[in-house]
Amino acid sequence: MSILEGNAVVFTQGGPTAVINASWVGVALGLMDAPEITGIYGSLHGIDGILNEEMVDLRAQSKDELITISKTPATALLSTRHKPNAEDNQKMLDVFKKYNIRYVFGAGGNDTSESLDIINDAAKKSGYELRMFHVAKTVDNDLMENDHTPGYASAARYVANAFRGADMDNKCFGGFYLAVCMGRHAGFLTAAAALGRTNAESGPHLVYVPEKAFDVDQFCKDVESVYTKFGRCVVAVSEGVEDKDGVSILQKLSSDTLEADSHGNVQLSGTGALADALVDKVKEYMEGKGIVKKLRARGDTLGYIQRSFPDQSSVDYEETLGLGKFAAECALKGELEGSVAMQRVSDTPYKMEYKLVPLKSVAGLTRHLPDDHVNAEGNNVTDAFMVWGKSLIGEMYVFGQLDLSKMVPKK
Amino acid sequence: MSILEGNAVVFTQGGPTAVINASWVGVALGLMDAPEITGIYGSLHGIDGILNEEMVDLRAQSKDELITISKTPATALLSTRHKPNAEDNQKMLDVFKKYNIRYVFGAGGNDTSESLDIINDAAKKSGYELRMFHVAKTVDNDLMENDHTPGYASAARYVANAFRGADMDNKCFGGFYLAVCMGRHAGFLTAAAALGRTNAESGPHLVYVPEKAFDVDQFCKDVESVYTKFGRCVVAVSEGVEDKDGVSILQKLSSDTLEADSHGNVQLSGTGALADALVDKVKEYMEGKGIVKKLRARGDTLGYIQRSFPDQSSVDYEETLGLGKFAAECALKGELEGSVAMQRVSDTPYKMEYKLVPLKSVAGLTRHLPDDHVNAEGNNVTDAFMVWGKSLIGEMYVFGQLDLSKMVPKK
Repeated sequence: MSILEGNAVVFTQGGPTAVINASWVGVALGLMDAPEITGIYGSLHGIDGILNEEMVDLRAQSKDELITISKTPATALLSTRHKPNAEDNQKMLDVFKKYNIRYVFGAGGNDTSESLDIINDAAKKSGYELRMFHVAKTVDNDLMENDHTPGYASAARYVANAFRGADMDNKCFGGFYLAVCMGRHAGFLTAAAALGRTNAESGPHLVYVPEKAFDVDQFCKDVESVYTKFGRCVVAVSEGVEDKDGVSILQKLSSDTLEADSHGNVQLSGTGALADALVDKVKEYMEGKGIVKKLRARGDTLGYIQRSFPDQSSVDYEETLGLGKFAAECALKGELEGSVAMQRVSDTPYKMEYKLVPLKSVAGLTRHLPDDHVNAEGNNVTDAFMVWGKSLIGEMYVFGQLDLSKMVPKK
Repeated sequence: MSILEGNAVVFTQGGPTAVINASWVGVALGLMDAPEITGIYGSLHGIDGILNEEMVDLRAQSKDELITISKTPATALLSTRHKPNAEDNQKMLDVFKKYNIRYVFGAGGNDTSESLDIINDAAKKSGYELRMFHVAKTVDNDLMENDHTPGYASAARYVANAFRGADMDNKCFGGFYLAVCMGRHAGFLTAAAALGRTNAESGPHLVYVPEKAFDVDQFCKDVESVYTKFGRCVVAVSEGVEDKDGVSILQKLSSDTLEADSHGNVQLSGTGALADALVDKVKEYMEGKGIVKKLRARGDTLGYIQRSFPDQSSVDYEETLGLGKFAAECALKGELEGSVAMQRVSDTPYKMEYKLVPLKSVAGLTRHLPDDHVNAEGNNVTDAFMVWGKSLIGEMYVFGQLDLSKMVPKK
């Protein structure tokens, strides 16, 4: 094994999570005592900090503060959605050379892994020796090679708790409640709403994910069926649900112009339009069909709070810090490149292991909910999902319940 | 003091909170060992459970489970927004007589206290001896005679934490972020967003409450001013903001028909329309004026999760359970009627006391943010509010911060 002396840079990209700080703090702590690492730099705003030469000296930070930062949501290294072009890649390579940066760690989703792969190829071509590692991150949980990604479990914990509370709230009055969850192409986060259920009658009673075609009429019928049974209905819907032709339901029901970022992603979060439109549809259907005279119907959009709420899943935090350290270990062991991933060994007892996988096996690809996590009707999760998800979100609030068999006898 | 023997009924009304179960569990525990209380009944769905004679036997419940319920959000006794008419009042009186109900405890907001006052007057007129108590409750904190109401502090804690996280998230990319908070006529809950600030530069940078006239143009100028300084701007807005003529901004900016309940309250929650409209206005203004070419602008509506998220403020929980017990004590001491309220004795150290106030001093009235809690410009809270609010929300997550004075020297 050849020892490569030089500086290391870590950065974070894309949408932050509740634990993304733990990723890079894990990397920094893992490199801290390695003599071959001459300096540990934190690039501000993802790759932009490299391009603009704005990097923080991480060895100069207090170690205690780094630990506190690792427990803080969003990324203290700040972020970007900048997708580098050929000129950017050349510029980055120049900066690496100028600062003798030999170790690169980028935490991000599949867009980031794609960028890293491209820079890595450019470095190889120019003969500059570089160790390049991608650290998985995304609340959407849509990275290949990962059972689950850092950030997902905390966001899932928030969604589960939000639905656990909202379902109790809905029960107080009855009626219809719907909340839209993040998840452009993958339904993992929306599915997590089901992890908040406390008993067989609790919501969400229906769960719609982008993996299954969404039919507005069928959706209304599903709601009717639950409402007829329970006098109420709670629904979780992915922001990214599409009809059978792949047209986004938001686009279909809304006339507003949608905003796209530089990766071509359309803005789905940060607007309440989908929830409002679906609530209107259900009201129209239920009242029109005379199932209820006036339906109490409410829609929320969980929005950015899903990824930024400060309540980390303890499992997510420990695993993410560990994954960052694992990336550092791989680099110090002489590995040249790859993406560090989390793979599940067993469900019960829950056991996970870290693995270094090829960058190209993650870059730009999207992972979806496994088929056996969604029911055949495409309107709910399965027990297999519940077992899978419950191991990730940490300890939940315990809810009490009245014994309604103990009624005051009627006179 | 005359001892009145008979049954007691407790019920909950209006929008639930994270601690409303603690109110009625407090009442039930306070009455549990009193020999003159022959039975403790929990009416289901507020007064509807009295009208329909659907009441749970609370002495038959496990005491441990009652404690667990008191830590559960929303009300296990379920709720209603039914405003009783003269016929309902007569029917209720009949049920009281039939079941020998002599003690009535209703947890709710100002609508509920009004209902209780009317029923109480009817009982007096008919000569039926009744002890009637209102237990303050509302996340809006808009009840007269109360420094703060049960439920407010937990909702405030959620709002503060949501903004604490969302502000860190916004910092990662820069740009504009706005979230709409509950608060029809009172800005207490929106103001709580400021309690999430971690330092002088953290958001929300602007806070708009219904107590001050909202001017859309001035709002855009305020955003410009913050954005020019920090490269970003985070804003908290009450759902109930109105212009100087008292026209709701939602109504003004939106063409949708708004839904009203039987108390004449227009539905402001459960729609993302206000946030979306304000975000559009800011984008239009900032891009139109050329301040930024393309503004990253996002709007969330915190919605129902504000009042139902399971994370109670420890202060709120203890005080609410205590307030319920205090109501029971008042009744057992021979007090005839009133609303149990929480009044502040001092800010530092924080000290609160329970007080029994006349029903009519709370009934149907609305309390507003004190003048000295909002700045003169009407776009932020003051230090007085911060001191007042911080004593209520319990221990907060500690956030870490990078030392940005330790940069890697540029080469």
